[in-house]
Amino acid sequence: MITFLSDFGLEDEFVGVVHGVIGRIAPEIRVIDLTHNIAPGDVRAGALALLRAVQYIPEGVALAVVDPGVGTHRRAIAVESSWGYFVGPDNGLLAPAVAMVGGAEKVVALEDPRFILPAAGASFDGRDKFGPAAAVLASGQATIEDLGPAVETGSLTPMLLPLPETEGDGIRGEVWWIDRFGNAQTNIGPEDAESLGLVPGSAVQVDVGASSYVIPWVIAYGDVDLGELLLHVDSQGLLALAVREGRAAERLQLGGKTQVVIRRSTASTP
Amino acid sequence: MITFLSDFGLEDEFVGVVHGVIGRIAPEIRVIDLTHNIAPGDVRAGALALLRAVQYIPEGVALAVVDPGVGTHRRAIAVESSWGYFVGPDNGLLAPAVAMVGGAEKVVALEDPRFILPAAGASFDGRDKFGPAAAVLASGQATIEDLGPAVETGSLTPMLLPLPETEGDGIRGEVWWIDRFGNAQTNIGPEDAESLGLVPGSAVQVDVGASSYVIPWVIAYGDVDLGELLLHVDSQGLLALAVREGRAAERLQLGGKTQVVIRRSTASTP
Amino acid sequence: MITFLSDFGLEDEFVGVVHGVIGRIAPEIRVIDLTHNIAPGDVRAGALALLRAVQYIPEGVALAVVDPGVGTHRRAIAVESSWGYFVGPDNGLLAPAVAMVGGAEKVVALEDPRFILPAAGASFDGRDKFGPAAAVLASGQATIEDLGPAVETGSLTPMLLPLPETEGDGIRGEVWWIDRFGNAQTNIGPEDAESLGLVPGSAVQVDVGASSYVIPWVIAYGDVDLGELLLHVDSQGLLALAVREGRAAERLQLGGKTQVVIRRSTASTP
Repeated sequence: MITFLSDFGLEDEFVGVVHGVIGRIAPEIRVIDLTHNIAPGDVRAGALALLRAVQYIPEGVALAVVDPGVGTHRRAIAVESSWGYFVGPDNGLLAPAVAMVGGAEKVVALEDPRFILPAAGASFDGRDKFGPAAAVLASGQATIEDLGPAVETGSLTPMLLPLPETEGDGIRGEVWWIDRFGNAQTNIGPEDAESLGLVPGSAVQVDVGASSYVIPWVIAYGDVDLGELLLHVDSQGLLALAVREGRAAERLQLGGKTQVVIRRSTASTP
Repeated sequence: MITFLSDFGLEDEFVGVVHGVIGRIAPEIRVIDLTHNIAPGDVRAGALALLRAVQYIPEGVALAVVDPGVGTHRRAIAVESSWGYFVGPDNGLLAPAVAMVGGAEKVVALEDPRFILPAAGASFDGRDKFGPAAAVLASGQATIEDLGPAVETGSLTPMLLPLPETEGDGIRGEVWWIDRFGNAQTNIGPEDAESLGLVPGSAVQVDVGASSYVIPWVIAYGDVDLGELLLHVDSQGLLALAVREGRAAERLQLGGKTQVVIRRSTASTP
Repeated sequence: MITFLSDFGLEDEFVGVVHGVIGRIAPEIRVIDLTHNIAPGDVRAGALALLRAVQYIPEGVALAVVDPGVGTHRRAIAVESSWGYFVGPDNGLLAPAVAMVGGAEKVVALEDPRFILPAAGASFDGRDKFGPAAAVLASGQATIEDLGPAVETGSLTPMLLPLPETEGDGIRGEVWWIDRFGNAQTNIGPEDAESLGLVPGSAVQVDVGASSYVIPWVIAYGDVDLGELLLHVDSQGLLALAVREGRAAERLQLGGKTQVVIRRSTASTP
């Protein structure tokens, strides 16, 4: 199986055409669409989505295309790992997921013309390079070595993701993801908060810009009343701000990359 | 086959992750996406979409997740019926479709940890409970009894859908669905209108709030001119307001749950 | 395999229901979704998307439904070609793709009731006529002749697509497609520009309304700086206006059908 993520959107036929190309090359291969609504060119958002998903998708081939550098000298690559193959541009998009599954064992540049569709222009590598590479790897029609020359693992473009940092008696992190429901996932883990002496059940002070909020750290939405703010460990194991049946992003004016500081509350539990 | 409906949207990777989980458990099972753009938390809209679709989707497993109560004590259930299985939260979402296919024959609560993915947080039951249950039921890896303790059919949460009511010399109903094309499906059936002596071909008075419209009841769009309002029996067998190559919702200021009254027109046919 | 394009959108369950109908009739057939976000009723945009995609999708059955005339006397048709079958309304939607693959060899009207789902209303032919026809053709359960009476190939509704025209020392064309990334594909091919003595690497004058721009004709995005306008041969082989990591549509105020004139630049290369 191939799992496919991109910023192609669903307004145009880009996604369907890549499915078509894969279907022509390897009709027996199924393709799972992870999401295609990554904001255009937002490599970091695509990398984070792939990172969050990789442990849940079938081992095989991950095809990921968020590629603002298409038509430049950035490399097109395939990566072999213990999990399977990753195919996409060498711009950091694949890096966090590859690291999560244990790192790259082998990397090649997609340069062999046998596996590249001839095309008038050089602006749709999803169709011309990445899709065909994913199809032949998934179906076993080619080995990764067939696809092009080896690339030094150490030369891959990394994705620099900020880590939370201690700040006074608190921890400064940032928002990594606002989901459809207005939940705001941070890059702070529960172990970071526990290092401050915070525990589930306690009240936590959350600073966003010049504003401070006292918010209960709870296990589940049901632990607060409808419409109440809460901090919890989300489905990915990270601390997230949420509102029961509401939207934390708007309530706290959070966006991607918004800085947040979590500290012990000096106020009583709300 | 599994048919999958949710309010997860397509902006995030939620839908893809559930596909991934199903693919890991039961790679041979295909998944049809019914829609994932139910408005967040709108259980009634999800229930109506499932109800409209159930007679057209392959018998097997319907996986439906519109679940504002995730992380509370609402039950996660699987329902066996003559049609097949329904998997989702016990919040009324499944009820109309289950009733449509003849009612629940057996219901269990999804509590057996063998079929629940271990997870950090309790906010993505689509991935952790519902997806796995659908996958093992569809593939025959488990029986419904394996998934958890039996639940009394009579204890399920119902979905209360309003029925049209006689009002003076007319029938009061409400809008159930505004579709992409601006068509407004009501909960009024043709037999209700016929009980007033209305027949296709006649002019009908439709009251929306303080406004009244005289609209022809026709068989098909082609029976009126471009841009004209019409009342017809829609593809689901319910009376719907439409505009030929236009949008009735904006023309008549209709939304979900807007009240409409249909009566004999005292005016001449428009 | 069936490839499916429509203007049904993904907000409602229309697309899923058609998948369901196909799955009930021919469970072994896979369906590739090309796109379902053609603007409602925009037959030309649907025809162009199908035209762009047809050479990349698996030979078999193309199911296309952009059908503002549903419920009128427009014909529902299936077309046989050397590529495979096309199924959809006879409103010009299929015509450019059919022509691209060599023309229609046989056409029938979808009238045989054995392959039409009985339905209350006549407003969802995707579900009731087109989906079933595609399913039985793809699975070999019926021949095209089984589906209904033959239609004269010459009687099909054409899609009139404007061709670029010489205008003074330039060529007048129009925008055919604004994609998600703000790229504007024109109907002008590189051979048209070359007939003016333009070559890749030269500067081109592009007139849009009363404004004129001098834009380099380049091979790839990487040939200009970030944020710069460029003219290139796009992935379909047509001249397109783009901005490297930006949006040409907004920069040049281009929409579908905007007229553009391309001529030799009298200015020096920008």
